[in-house]
Amino acid sequence: MVSSYFRNLLLKLGLPEERLEVLEGKGALAEDEFEGIRYVRFRDSARNFRRGTVVFETGEAVLGFPHIKRVVQLENGIRRVFKNKPFYVEEKVDGYNVRVVKVKDKILAITRGGFVCPFTTERIEDFVNFDFFKDYPNLVLVGEMAGPESPYLVEGPPYVKEDIEFFLFDIQEKGTGRSLPAEERYRLAEEYGIPQVERFGLYDSSKVGELKELIEWLSEEKREGIVMKSPDMRRIAKYVTPYANINDIKIGSHIFFDLPHGYFMGRIKRLAFYLAENHVRGEEFENYAKALGTALLRPFVESIHEVANGGEVDETFTVRVKNITTAHKMVTHFERLGVKIHIEDIEDLGNGYWRITFKRVYPDATREIRELWNGLAFVD
Amino acid sequence: MVSSYFRNLLLKLGLPEERLEVLEGKGALAEDEFEGIRYVRFRDSARNFRRGTVVFETGEAVLGFPHIKRVVQLENGIRRVFKNKPFYVEEKVDGYNVRVVKVKDKILAITRGGFVCPFTTERIEDFVNFDFFKDYPNLVLVGEMAGPESPYLVEGPPYVKEDIEFFLFDIQEKGTGRSLPAEERYRLAEEYGIPQVERFGLYDSSKVGELKELIEWLSEEKREGIVMKSPDMRRIAKYVTPYANINDIKIGSHIFFDLPHGYFMGRIKRLAFYLAENHVRGEEFENYAKALGTALLRPFVESIHEVANGGEVDETFTVRVKNITTAHKMVTHFERLGVKIHIEDIEDLGNGYWRITFKRVYPDATREIRELWNGLAFVD
Repeated sequence: MVSSYFRNLLLKLGLPEERLEVLEGKGALAEDEFEGIRYVRFRDSARNFRRGTVVFETGEAVLGFPHIKRVVQLENGIRRVFKNKPFYVEEKVDGYNVRVVKVKDKILAITRGGFVCPFTTERIEDFVNFDFFKDYPNLVLVGEMAGPESPYLVEGPPYVKEDIEFFLFDIQEKGTGRSLPAEERYRLAEEYGIPQVERFGLYDSSKVGELKELIEWLSEEKREGIVMKSPDMRRIAKYVTPYANINDIKIGSHIFFDLPHGYFMGRIKRLAFYLAENHVRGEEFENYAKALGTALLRPFVESIHEVANGGEVDETFTVRVKNITTAHKMVTHFERLGVKIHIEDIEDLGNGYWRITFKRVYPDATREIRELWNGLAFVD
Repeated sequence: MVSSYFRNLLLKLGLPEERLEVLEGKGALAEDEFEGIRYVRFRDSARNFRRGTVVFETGEAVLGFPHIKRVVQLENGIRRVFKNKPFYVEEKVDGYNVRVVKVKDKILAITRGGFVCPFTTERIEDFVNFDFFKDYPNLVLVGEMAGPESPYLVEGPPYVKEDIEFFLFDIQEKGTGRSLPAEERYRLAEEYGIPQVERFGLYDSSKVGELKELIEWLSEEKREGIVMKSPDMRRIAKYVTPYANINDIKIGSHIFFDLPHGYFMGRIKRLAFYLAENHVRGEEFENYAKALGTALLRPFVESIHEVANGGEVDETFTVRVKNITTAHKMVTHFERLGVKIHIEDIEDLGNGYWRITFKRVYPDATREIRELWNGLAFVD
């Protein structure tokens, strides 16, 4: 339910009354608060208010970050999306999406689902020069938080050796969600020293060969892929490396029953199109096949053994925070997401940071394995 | 819609009127005819009338064949299903399920979905001694039709070198669907010379080691698995070999987009439990991983290349019939199933049989691959 204050605000921002009532009816609007700042989170899309949109009590709206379209055949995908026009190529960083925004003198970091994340909000000042928001209070910095010490992902890009980092890849306007042109973003990021995703420059459909070499190199480097963007940011498409497809499967197979089938099948599909497009054959094909089979089976079999021996399916995360209270806020945050975690260890790093180790438990995946292991007979 | 004749018949057989109307409302009752014999087919379950049940104009009902429960952990599955009681072990033959029944002096073969199959009905006399039905008109022979020349499956068991064969694995009563005790079925099949699935004898939970050796041997022989049955046929469970799990994936990967994700994921799950239960490791584990990866990728990549080169995703089937009209009836039968086939070749074998070669086309899988190959950008 939404208070009358926010009802009036949303109506003033152009959300039709009937639409508002439908959203309320299905619980798609959630009112929330972070350190005294109230906001409404959109759990569904309505008009230009995309899922993940946040409207603050100030009337400022941060639109949900749009899903970027994927191509699985690079050469034809480029022709179809960009025709013969040039596009910038940037690294697709393996992390979690955050929108960083200034509201009422506070800098907040919002996750994809529209939550103000207490962990990211605490840490964002380590990565972003806040002067930017003095000069551009109406802009939203969109980036990927990535690294081995992330609260949401068990792995990060290979070049982040510890902790976590921020990589800017978009700057949008509050309210409209319009992206700045790529060059303007590059310039602003440099001016304020905001770390960006790696940029590989301008390409066009005549340079598909070079782009394929880039993909191969990224794959060898164990990196996730690329995002291609027209300079005006109107056309965007992503493509992931075969490494990332297999590695995602490896990570997912550990919690096999906690993921939808499409998680695995989508990545197998992308890998098959990579092999087909690049005419991979012989020993190289066999290596991919073996890597895929191993990724599907090994962590899954290990989880079965874990449960068979009385254990459970879980994942261990480590993060660094400045205040222990942030760790406790994170627990509360995860509980609201319906995720079961418990803190295993809190260690004073002596440099103003605490290292928090916590476990995420997968009760459904554990129960499913336990039942099957115990000999459940079932109809499928 | 069902005629008043069948309405009255179904009511007389005990289907409550409200239930009948619900079934009709969702189109779950289909009235049909085969060579002058009218019948109603249940596309959904209602009371004891399981999905696939057929009620003939004579009032005789052939109940839908029940789904046999599966275990993926053999040792615990046996303990749980059979406790310490003995059970018969029979081969699970890789074919399609048919119920053979006598109605009005005709012997008809009914597929799982409740269709009288024109192909199987024509050929069933080659395998089953019809004297059985003179003596037992009230019984239904349930068996697997299996071999390389099947209209429904691209492969068959390795020991059927050509054509197709019938393998009895159950005898049920008309009307009740009750199974005869296993020994009685064995005896009747021997008496009438009806071919049966291979039987491996009586086992119990103390003989799990031997059963595991049997599974391994069957897997090496490229056979599908086992069905375990209490002598009174009240408790039944199936278990498939790792070979069959991987081989099914190989066959399915060719038509990747035409199968639900669960088809693949279920088989990966079974394979993982096999590897976990049997502590498969080292080189043997790697061989399974590679076989799985290859099964998922190779036929799929081949289909992508086929479509990329202007072709389509299809499968070629060959069957032997006595009358060419049977081939045409089959085409009609497939059309009613919503399946697109076309006959490629008809060859006179000179021994009273014709060999029909037909192609099944997968338009959805073809279209999906074509769109992705052509560079479709999509949100997933």
